[in-house]
Amino acid sequence: MAFQSKKLINDPNDVVTEFIEGLIETYPGLQYLDGFPEVKVVLRADISGAKYDKVAIISGGGSGHEPAYAGFVGEGMLTAAICGDVFTSPNVDSILAGIRAVTGPMGCLLIVTNYTGDRLNFGLAAEQAKSEGFKVEMVIVGDDCALPPPRGIAGRRGLAGTILVHKVAGAAAACGLPLADVSAEAKRASEMVGTMGVALSVCTLPGQVTSDRLGPGKMELGLGIHGEPGAAVADLQPVDVVVSHVLKEILSSETNYVPITRGSRVVLLINGLGATPLMELMIIAGKAVPGLQLEHGLAVDRVYTGSFVTSLDMAGFSISVMKADQAILDRLDAPTNAPNWPVGAEGNRPPAKIPVPLPPSHSIQSDKTLSRPEKLSPQGHILEGAIEAAATEVVNLRDNLNEWDSKVGDGDCGSTMFRGAVAILEDMKKYYPLNDPAETINEIGSSIRRVMGGTSGILYSIFSKAAYAELKANTESVVTALHWANALEAAIAAVSKYGGASAGYRTLLDALIPALSALKERLNAGDDPVDAFIISAEAASAGAESTKHMQAQAGRSTYVPGDVLASVPDPGAMAAAGWYRAAALAVKEKYNTA
Amino acid sequence: MAFQSKKLINDPNDVVTEFIEGLIETYPGLQYLDGFPEVKVVLRADISGAKYDKVAIISGGGSGHEPAYAGFVGEGMLTAAICGDVFTSPNVDSILAGIRAVTGPMGCLLIVTNYTGDRLNFGLAAEQAKSEGFKVEMVIVGDDCALPPPRGIAGRRGLAGTILVHKVAGAAAACGLPLADVSAEAKRASEMVGTMGVALSVCTLPGQVTSDRLGPGKMELGLGIHGEPGAAVADLQPVDVVVSHVLKEILSSETNYVPITRGSRVVLLINGLGATPLMELMIIAGKAVPGLQLEHGLAVDRVYTGSFVTSLDMAGFSISVMKADQAILDRLDAPTNAPNWPVGAEGNRPPAKIPVPLPPSHSIQSDKTLSRPEKLSPQGHILEGAIEAAATEVVNLRDNLNEWDSKVGDGDCGSTMFRGAVAILEDMKKYYPLNDPAETINEIGSSIRRVMGGTSGILYSIFSKAAYAELKANTESVVTALHWANALEAAIAAVSKYGGASAGYRTLLDALIPALSALKERLNAGDDPVDAFIISAEAASAGAESTKHMQAQAGRSTYVPGDVLASVPDPGAMAAAGWYRAAALAVKEKYNTA
Repeated sequence: MAFQSKKLINDPNDVVTEFIEGLIETYPGLQYLDGFPEVKVVLRADISGAKYDKVAIISGGGSGHEPAYAGFVGEGMLTAAICGDVFTSPNVDSILAGIRAVTGPMGCLLIVTNYTGDRLNFGLAAEQAKSEGFKVEMVIVGDDCALPPPRGIAGRRGLAGTILVHKVAGAAAACGLPLADVSAEAKRASEMVGTMGVALSVCTLPGQVTSDRLGPGKMELGLGIHGEPGAAVADLQPVDVVVSHVLKEILSSETNYVPITRGSRVVLLINGLGATPLMELMIIAGKAVPGLQLEHGLAVDRVYTGSFVTSLDMAGFSISVMKADQAILDRLDAPTNAPNWPVGAEGNRPPAKIPVPLPPSHSIQSDKTLSRPEKLSPQGHILEGAIEAAATEVVNLRDNLNEWDSKVGDGDCGSTMFRGAVAILEDMKKYYPLNDPAETINEIGSSIRRVMGGTSGILYSIFSKAAYAELKANTESVVTALHWANALEAAIAAVSKYGGASAGYRTLLDALIPALSALKERLNAGDDPVDAFIISAEAASAGAESTKHMQAQAGRSTYVPGDVLASVPDPGAMAAAGWYRAAALAVKEKYNTA
Repeated sequence: MAFQSKKLINDPNDVVTEFIEGLIETYPGLQYLDGFPEVKVVLRADISGAKYDKVAIISGGGSGHEPAYAGFVGEGMLTAAICGDVFTSPNVDSILAGIRAVTGPMGCLLIVTNYTGDRLNFGLAAEQAKSEGFKVEMVIVGDDCALPPPRGIAGRRGLAGTILVHKVAGAAAACGLPLADVSAEAKRASEMVGTMGVALSVCTLPGQVTSDRLGPGKMELGLGIHGEPGAAVADLQPVDVVVSHVLKEILSSETNYVPITRGSRVVLLINGLGATPLMELMIIAGKAVPGLQLEHGLAVDRVYTGSFVTSLDMAGFSISVMKADQAILDRLDAPTNAPNWPVGAEGNRPPAKIPVPLPPSHSIQSDKTLSRPEKLSPQGHILEGAIEAAATEVVNLRDNLNEWDSKVGDGDCGSTMFRGAVAILEDMKKYYPLNDPAETINEIGSSIRRVMGGTSGILYSIFSKAAYAELKANTESVVTALHWANALEAAIAAVSKYGGASAGYRTLLDALIPALSALKERLNAGDDPVDAFIISAEAASAGAESTKHMQAQAGRSTYVPGDVLASVPDPGAMAAAGWYRAAALAVKEKYNTA
């Protein structure tokens, strides 16, 4: 089934000029010649031809290969790019305009991909420019390795390897070398590189219907970058297999296209054809490097991965392999301002992976020595009673919580909380260091994280860890009521921050925030801490009940109609009020019996 | 019709770890923690946590948004990126591992997109890290402007604007600022930016079937980056209209999401969603800038265009607009090694377009003063005769050439050559400066270029221009036979170079190359130049006839069977031999009658 293209464009005839306008808006270092629509030339904004004291590097060709070639204009790479219409060679006048605009006394090098139209148009422009007194050289790049060696002119197309030639030439020119030397370096680079492409889809020309040449589950091997069919169609396979095949073709000793033999040093370029996600290109890079090293015995000095020479929105990639030596690496590593030359690929690789760091030693230490104390301190005794009462209350509340949750949520609030409570009761007996309240609270968080899933599990883990950090910050030997209040405040703040809820959102905070307010108020008023805790617990219960009148603003309850919500309290708030109240009552009882 | 995804991957479960392996192969400045598959953390290779003397900037989230976030790790931007599975928040342990690996005494800032899973997992990791003694702050980014202001937690998703926050925070940290200041700058930046997305297609999850939710000719407005449906579906329109709508939504005074009013300075980020060609993104940038300036009265200080936060292979884009001031611009312009932060967008814009340069003045001069001399010199007289004879011969050969070409080509060789010959005859009478042979040859090239299409037209233009440049290089007042021979040699070399053909390819060179050899041989032997020219012309004719026995290696004849070719000479070679011989005979006649 062929289908009409969907493209983010206006008039298909204006895509190249509008592309250039956007490019120039994006990159202040670029300019263009005011000759639309015939003359479409992008050039460095920081130089002017007559005074330019280096060799100008000019390339170009049909458009539709973005960022090639305009995206490679910048100090250290191209001086100007001549843009033709989509998949159409630029005309002689636009090439000439580009040459005249950037070429100074040192001359210019034209780097041209091996297509008849490009060779002839650039060629005539070169001869015309020479006749006007410019020094002009031209290097033709034909890096295609997909087809058997051609008999005549046709055949080795210029593909993504061209941008490596651009970079070598641009860096050589930036060093101030004369035209003959820059040209020789570019020519040598062009002879060192081979490329082969693979496509999963054809490309869509602006305003045209897309071909359905490639069926489902098929790929084309050895294609060009102008929508032409590939050399072969094959079933799509795991990308490891595809990469291995492509590398073999490029490095084939039968075609002998590139002078690369076992032991050579190479650079690798993985190029996306337009619609291939970077994730997939990186997966290809991750397979091509060991492939070159292990299957072909090559040292891979540099890897460039990205979409450099595309074919509009084609899904697929090409691999280029270039023989490298220190001279070429120096050119490739040289700095450039060209927007689309890859950043950060230069230099040698340190070890790729490092060990996952262990927790800080004090943390390990405390983990290892955790155990329930032989003898509980008075504070430890009270803490144990509070935890036991709170967890037991949650166990008892299971069915009620599930019932409420079945009306306003997914019905598992009671079961989830039950799992956490049971784990706390078990773990406490085994190893909670009850004489150290901070570490005990930390362990409650660990128990919860281990067994409770879902949002409530992670929120209670955050609650416990934040309370722990606050308690830990105190260096006094006994934890006072004020410390506990501060810990509750820190825990509430963390749950609110990371969970995103505030008072009135119909969550557990609607029990805990009133509890905290009451607790601080009574403590500040000088009340007995145990009485303050009880009053605070009553505020928690009242707050939880009040959630019946709240619109849900977090969690699944946001999808439940208001009249249903009005008959049911928030189960999370009820659970919080329940365990909080049970803890308070237990503390009061322990103090009274102490 | 839903269809099975075509992806360049191996096992869908391994896409994230294999992505990271490829990323590390590509960028020697990056490393990863050796904790696959659970711990997927990319970090700078040049720092180690305990000794790091700056605030560490950590971000992350589900994968599938590449290059976000691992591609933004580098000096001056992120210190580490925590990668979850595709569209899945990373787990707490991997976030903790990342914090431990890069956080030194200055602490770390977590920049987290506003999704529940990310908030909670990063939140718990933050609390755990604090309890281990790390200084940790967290900033949550929710830049989505597509939906009406939410009542509760859900709603403003974190989208591509997040990377601007990364950059601001990374640059602030690189300056050595303390955690509180870095965090404050990041928070402020997060409040300055708004984003809205548009999709033309849904994305394909690795190993899954792609939805056909979006019909032909439709687009979705206000979508997120996880394949979820957009806020509205609309007919696809010209991109100018789409961009204008998106900008209005972002800057809506009703939602008031971003504090941007007329006269504000802003930066603009055009983000591709994965499968949108750079050409289209640049077209969007080219429309958004004047849209912001003219429709909204804003100054656009920076434009970033590329694929930064993608949604696998979704076709579409998002626009982010951030209020800017000098402090924010300084952070955005600060250098970074992060591979995917856009290069070359910093700084102010010089004039975008410059005039197309005119030809060098001497060239204009000669164009303007061109006219047929009142009186021809003896040399001019002979030249006129040679040109007239050569062109007339081509006129006479029209039908023969067409007939041969109909057998081995597309049948228009005679007609094309005829057009050129007629133009030469007419133009010569009007303005060829016949007393100046070099300029006359140049004008022949111009006549040909004006009227002759196709490959032969441009090849003869190149031929003439190259001959002209060679003749021009001679400063002697009279053009000798040796000069002419050198001009022929330069012309042949240019045609061979740009056209790609050599002797034996069955082209016009198979007439001209033997002619040149004979001419040089006779001249070197001391023959009379006129006799040498005649002998050379005979070699041309013999060479043209010999093309019958050649396999075609250039042009359309390469597709013609050998037995057909054997009965027909190459029409291009016959034409060349024809005009060359006619010229030689005319020169001989003129000399004899002079």
